[in-house]
Amino acid sequence: MNERLIFLTNDDGFDSRGMEALIDIARRFGRVVVVAPERPQSGMSHAFTMLSPLFIRKVREEEGLEVYALSGTPVDCVKVAFDYLLRERKVDLVLSGINHGSNSAVALLYSGTMGAAIEGSFYDCPSIGLSLTDHRPDADFTAARIWGERIVRDVLEHPAPLPLCLNVNIPAGAPETIRGIRVCRQAQGLWREQFVCRQDPHGRDYLWLTGEFVNDEHGAEETDEWALTHGYVSVQPVQADQTDYRRMEEMRRLFDR
Amino acid sequence: MNERLIFLTNDDGFDSRGMEALIDIARRFGRVVVVAPERPQSGMSHAFTMLSPLFIRKVREEEGLEVYALSGTPVDCVKVAFDYLLRERKVDLVLSGINHGSNSAVALLYSGTMGAAIEGSFYDCPSIGLSLTDHRPDADFTAARIWGERIVRDVLEHPAPLPLCLNVNIPAGAPETIRGIRVCRQAQGLWREQFVCRQDPHGRDYLWLTGEFVNDEHGAEETDEWALTHGYVSVQPVQADQTDYRRMEEMRRLFDR
Repeated sequence: MNERLIFLTNDDGFDSRGMEALIDIARRFGRVVVVAPERPQSGMSHAFTMLSPLFIRKVREEEGLEVYALSGTPVDCVKVAFDYLLRERKVDLVLSGINHGSNSAVALLYSGTMGAAIEGSFYDCPSIGLSLTDHRPDADFTAARIWGERIVRDVLEHPAPLPLCLNVNIPAGAPETIRGIRVCRQAQGLWREQFVCRQDPHGRDYLWLTGEFVNDEHGAEETDEWALTHGYVSVQPVQADQTDYRRMEEMRRLFDR
Repeated sequence: MNERLIFLTNDDGFDSRGMEALIDIARRFGRVVVVAPERPQSGMSHAFTMLSPLFIRKVREEEGLEVYALSGTPVDCVKVAFDYLLRERKVDLVLSGINHGSNSAVALLYSGTMGAAIEGSFYDCPSIGLSLTDHRPDADFTAARIWGERIVRDVLEHPAPLPLCLNVNIPAGAPETIRGIRVCRQAQGLWREQFVCRQDPHGRDYLWLTGEFVNDEHGAEETDEWALTHGYVSVQPVQADQTDYRRMEEMRRLFDR
């Protein structure tokens, strides 16, 4: 039997609408095992749980599909899948998402969806994080389903050298408005934030984060932000090595003086 | 008055021994403000808090030093400092650490210390994460204090272009055993993990992560792992852009077919 085995996770929780869409895509390509967080884990980045135990429960089982909920982060879900639940089995693909909201530009660093996708790429199979640029609970996943399926098919049918991790973002809107796929680099730009400060009912001050992304590179056609605002699906190849090689010599001069 | 202002955080908590060592270093160079987690936050990576409020309290104040404890992640501490507490003031340097345990190789991705250091580099000042390759509660910080001070002085006295983020690891051992500083890239290699599965007193199964780092590049003299095992302080210049530029053309061919 050589049916494919596809592992799924996300950061919005095992019962989110984005997970439902991702399950539908994945089942077209093989057997599906999901381990996803019990509760939403947005903004959890590459966080994992070292100092406390994790609880896992099976929440759904039917032909070709098992779904587990885990009391941890998205990265914990990947580790539990590969190092415990599926450790005797060959996994062909990791999919993380479909996230409610974009993970383009620096959002990659904060994203639990992409933390899990990067972690998945450490286990000898391709790994794809998928996000829809629409935060709304009633977001329309139609275009994300169509383009997500197209990208999954391309990756499965044309194996590329490993490790392979892709950050895929799909613009909000109807499928016919999407102009195609662009392979992109991460745009520069930052979240500009402020804290709302209020008093709780017990008289204690609390701070609550708000903010918006400021794109520093509006005209840069090679960036994910440009692709998304111009109606393209963005695909960014992602690496785990964060060394800034362009600055090695400068730093050697600084510390050798 | 142009005394320097230095912002400090960590992931082991405001009252850790590594923070005490870092405060001692930083006070030699200017006024110091600390915002650090109430509780240990190891493995929190670049996680931040979006969906719940944060509470902050001042825990110490003396001439040239203020220490605050925050109910959030290391990255939350940086955001609260720059976007709330210090938003009217010019900060000259961010220091994160001194971590109990190495943040070399892929540990960079999981590290709350380095999550905070990268976040600090987004705010127009140099940012340095410092870690000691010794997890033990009674670890000797003497060498880390000496080499940490040396690196902070170099960065302050010889300003480099921004953004600048450095991942500094200091080998365990006596100061006289350290052979110098090496500017390094992140070694390849992964944590190989397993889960211990037990039953809690209420009969529920739980999973608890264990593991060890496996270095795939033992002979590679340009890596941080090589430097640390050969008695050098490793300094890695870090970037927020995780695009794998070497694979852009390959991916264009894959998705353009």
